[in-house]
Amino acid sequence: MPYELDDDTTLTADASGLYRGRMSDRWNVGAVPNGGYVLAFGMAALKRALPQPDPITVTAHYLGPAAAGEAEVEVHMLKAGRQFCTATGGIRQNGREIVRMLATYGDLSQTNGPMHIDAVAPIVPPIDHPPLSLEPPMPIAIRQRFEQRFADNGGAAPRAETRGWIRFADRRPMDTHCLGLIADAFPPAVFNVTERGWVPTLELTVHVRARPRSNVLHCVFRTRFLFGGFLEEDGEMWDEAGNLVAQSRQLAAAPRLQ
Amino acid sequence: MPYELDDDTTLTADASGLYRGRMSDRWNVGAVPNGGYVLAFGMAALKRALPQPDPITVTAHYLGPAAAGEAEVEVHMLKAGRQFCTATGGIRQNGREIVRMLATYGDLSQTNGPMHIDAVAPIVPPIDHPPLSLEPPMPIAIRQRFEQRFADNGGAAPRAETRGWIRFADRRPMDTHCLGLIADAFPPAVFNVTERGWVPTLELTVHVRARPRSNVLHCVFRTRFLFGGFLEEDGEMWDEAGNLVAQSRQLAAAPRLQ
Repeated sequence: MPYELDDDTTLTADASGLYRGRMSDRWNVGAVPNGGYVLAFGMAALKRALPQPDPITVTAHYLGPAAAGEAEVEVHMLKAGRQFCTATGGIRQNGREIVRMLATYGDLSQTNGPMHIDAVAPIVPPIDHPPLSLEPPMPIAIRQRFEQRFADNGGAAPRAETRGWIRFADRRPMDTHCLGLIADAFPPAVFNVTERGWVPTLELTVHVRARPRSNVLHCVFRTRFLFGGFLEEDGEMWDEAGNLVAQSRQLAAAPRLQ
Repeated sequence: MPYELDDDTTLTADASGLYRGRMSDRWNVGAVPNGGYVLAFGMAALKRALPQPDPITVTAHYLGPAAAGEAEVEVHMLKAGRQFCTATGGIRQNGREIVRMLATYGDLSQTNGPMHIDAVAPIVPPIDHPPLSLEPPMPIAIRQRFEQRFADNGGAAPRAETRGWIRFADRRPMDTHCLGLIADAFPPAVFNVTERGWVPTLELTVHVRARPRSNVLHCVFRTRFLFGGFLEEDGEMWDEAGNLVAQSRQLAAAPRLQ
């Protein structure tokens, strides 16, 4: 039995290098596939098309809403270097491009060079912490795909910050290709300080910094600037060995009621 | 007399929508045009090609070194929406693509909606602070294009952080199109904690959050994670009215001696 994510990002390539598959509704938020899942779907094509094993930096611009169903990914190589390769990927549904990716791949098996780390891993609840029973305002299928525990802020003033641990419900191992999904798998941090609403992602960039060495990741997401109709959300994903495995930043439109 | 930056990003468009111009050597670091200047050159084409006035989020992947001289920019519109438009831009020299941009434009003249700001502007030296006389290890033409003052850290333990103010030497006004240049116009923050060397940018993303309301910007750049051969550098650019005008993040290879 394949893991759910691998099942739901299975692609077939035709002779022209077009990758086709079916987006599942198992990763939906409301009626729409989660943006991180859509990115993981697209990265499944990049993984097959590019000679380097690891995404190093991937940017996705969201052009229109995705829907469960048929989708195709067209990959164009821009540069195939010895150390890095860069490609674009366009995800299309019904002939319309819904996401454009721009990605540079490399090899994260080498870990040498100078080191300077001015940060600590986020403090998250213990692994056996009982789940909070939150009643989400809409059906969130993606919540069934993960086990997650969120830290509370101990009664301090609310901040637009979400911390917690996450693993796949089916215990799929973490790898460098699922970190774009993880970067978008927590509830928006801004919900701590605003009314909930639709927070459409315009752009999401993930820097993958290391191959995860645990199936549980410790994550923190923060929004420091909500104004003028936009917000950023910065994420850090760490493995249980205490290594940063990815940083993310997204630009989204400010929450609006649907 | 046009300002230096406008002179050095002048483009002519041919009938097919290809933009041509000449990259100047006035923005060089050593023998190579600064990556932020190359981005500003490319964004001059996006500005002309796109119907919306402001870059909202721009990502550039650096595929190969630029050189002073002829260059062309090819823009492809991906989506022209009512509120946002998204396009790619490829900067080419001698038939080879050296930078690929992916950008979403919008209109930053509207500033409404919810507000939550969990940050303060960086503390920078006074505007009349005397310049430090630093002897750079190589000729840095771009230093002549700006006036800058850097904050010292008051004898505290060194951190990979650079703070200071910046304005154009010819007093060119700041606008939303030069913020990609400003995001790369400070010495790498990592030089505070490592030997100096070449720090090749792989990817630079700029979120433009507001139109600058002063010609001096207060900036801070930080590297928190240098390991495994890579580093990120996060930047904030604020205007003198106390508004964040842009955030930047770049992924670069760790410094190496040339």
